[in-house]
Amino acid sequence: MSSSIGFEQIDAHRCFGGQQLRFRHRSVVLDCDMHFSVFLPSRSASAKVPVIYWLSGLTCTDENFVTKAGAQQFAEAAGVAIVAPDTSPRGEAVPDDPEGAYDFGLGAGFYVDATEAPWQHHYQMYSYVVEELPGLLGSLPINPAQASIMGHSMGGHGALTIALKNPQAYQSVSAFSPICSPLQCPWGEKALGNYLGADRERWKAYDACELLARAEKTLPLLVDQGDADNFLTEQLKTELLVQAGQATGYDMQVRMQPGYDHSYFFIASFIEDHIRFHASYLNAG
Amino acid sequence: MSSSIGFEQIDAHRCFGGQQLRFRHRSVVLDCDMHFSVFLPSRSASAKVPVIYWLSGLTCTDENFVTKAGAQQFAEAAGVAIVAPDTSPRGEAVPDDPEGAYDFGLGAGFYVDATEAPWQHHYQMYSYVVEELPGLLGSLPINPAQASIMGHSMGGHGALTIALKNPQAYQSVSAFSPICSPLQCPWGEKALGNYLGADRERWKAYDACELLARAEKTLPLLVDQGDADNFLTEQLKTELLVQAGQATGYDMQVRMQPGYDHSYFFIASFIEDHIRFHASYLNAG
Repeated sequence: MSSSIGFEQIDAHRCFGGQQLRFRHRSVVLDCDMHFSVFLPSRSASAKVPVIYWLSGLTCTDENFVTKAGAQQFAEAAGVAIVAPDTSPRGEAVPDDPEGAYDFGLGAGFYVDATEAPWQHHYQMYSYVVEELPGLLGSLPINPAQASIMGHSMGGHGALTIALKNPQAYQSVSAFSPICSPLQCPWGEKALGNYLGADRERWKAYDACELLARAEKTLPLLVDQGDADNFLTEQLKTELLVQAGQATGYDMQVRMQPGYDHSYFFIASFIEDHIRFHASYLNAG
Repeated sequence: MSSSIGFEQIDAHRCFGGQQLRFRHRSVVLDCDMHFSVFLPSRSASAKVPVIYWLSGLTCTDENFVTKAGAQQFAEAAGVAIVAPDTSPRGEAVPDDPEGAYDFGLGAGFYVDATEAPWQHHYQMYSYVVEELPGLLGSLPINPAQASIMGHSMGGHGALTIALKNPQAYQSVSAFSPICSPLQCPWGEKALGNYLGADRERWKAYDACELLARAEKTLPLLVDQGDADNFLTEQLKTELLVQAGQATGYDMQVRMQPGYDHSYFFIASFIEDHIRFHASYLNAG
């Protein structure tokens, strides 16, 4: 398979009886070298296991979730793998925000397929997560046909939009502190304006609220949001997702968690719930 | 209290129902500004709680354990605080390894009171952990009289030696991958040779195996060591601790964990056991 060029394992740690692994490969759709991390539960020694994808937020790599979320113990208990990709294409050939801002360019791919120059050549994170990455998992003891997806902040936006666009490919979706409508917040306006151009109609294909309004199939959907999150009012706007769900009757759980902020301390506090949520659909599938 | 000059809370996150806090203060014994981190369980809202000290290893600050070990959920369940100090004095006035090596100087205080120039003015980490830090906790909902201590690698050495020298001050002690005998490994020889001088007799006051041989009171003592740890043979030498314990009849648990390495993935995998171990003595006290 052409997308597996240079696919190699570069790190391995025993963890909660399973294995925390890291891989490097040449991505075809991103045209650059990429890293991703995989937790394999001990159950994978004897059977292909389901997978939950984790999409990280702005400034993260594949490693933040792996070191900070404390997810492995719950993935081990549930017998599921967790696959965490990077948040953008990488490398010196990849263009970045001209001013090196944290909210666009490197570390901020927004899980879209860019159409505008100079971004469109490398910034194809939607296709990377939806198509190329699952194709790489065939050589691991993972069954990519049994998949769920979750993420945080920009990655929560990524998880929601990817699942809503591909409900046949995922059993369930969840998000921590997601950017609920990039059409209606400064982070989203900057990123989609640059990656997709000025025509806001084209942004709707990557806006969770817009996609909810058009959803033909309902997936199990869970969102946790801290009410002490500094980004809630200006960037995340959970109420827009709730309103979109109510308007269309999309059945979902949105939980406001009192006192919690935007950090990995929040994610760690509720990751068990999310993994159990996904596992209940994956293992039943 | 003079040691509380400039004592201020600089960070706070809700975490598993409790609070992950960070403090800055001017240390008298180290003569520099220091940071330390504290997890307070929700139980501390209504009562002073016991404390477990965590001492980190080479190159760490007070933050590594806080972000990577996943300890908060178990501290919340047990109703105990965790206090994590930094691993050395800090600041531009503090001398470092002349070559900037990772295993001596900044990030590598070895939890001793240095006697040799130029180290002795700032490098007093033993007194900082044993005396100054507990004195700072009085303004928090913590009972420093109910304390246990644990650590990793250099910090495992610190926890073992501090507890063995002060068995009246701690209810229990544990270590992950400890440096078991600084007298008998390159890391220890370099650090103690510089901090304490060439007379190896004086090093014995900071060598867990030597202290075990002279212990008058037995503390509950637990050690976990991964058998895939790259530092095991040359630096950590768990077998010396086992032999010292057997020679004196010191009752302790030393567990070799198959396939685990020196990383925080190992610590995270067994931190629940250590917190439950300490809590069983702290809450009974």
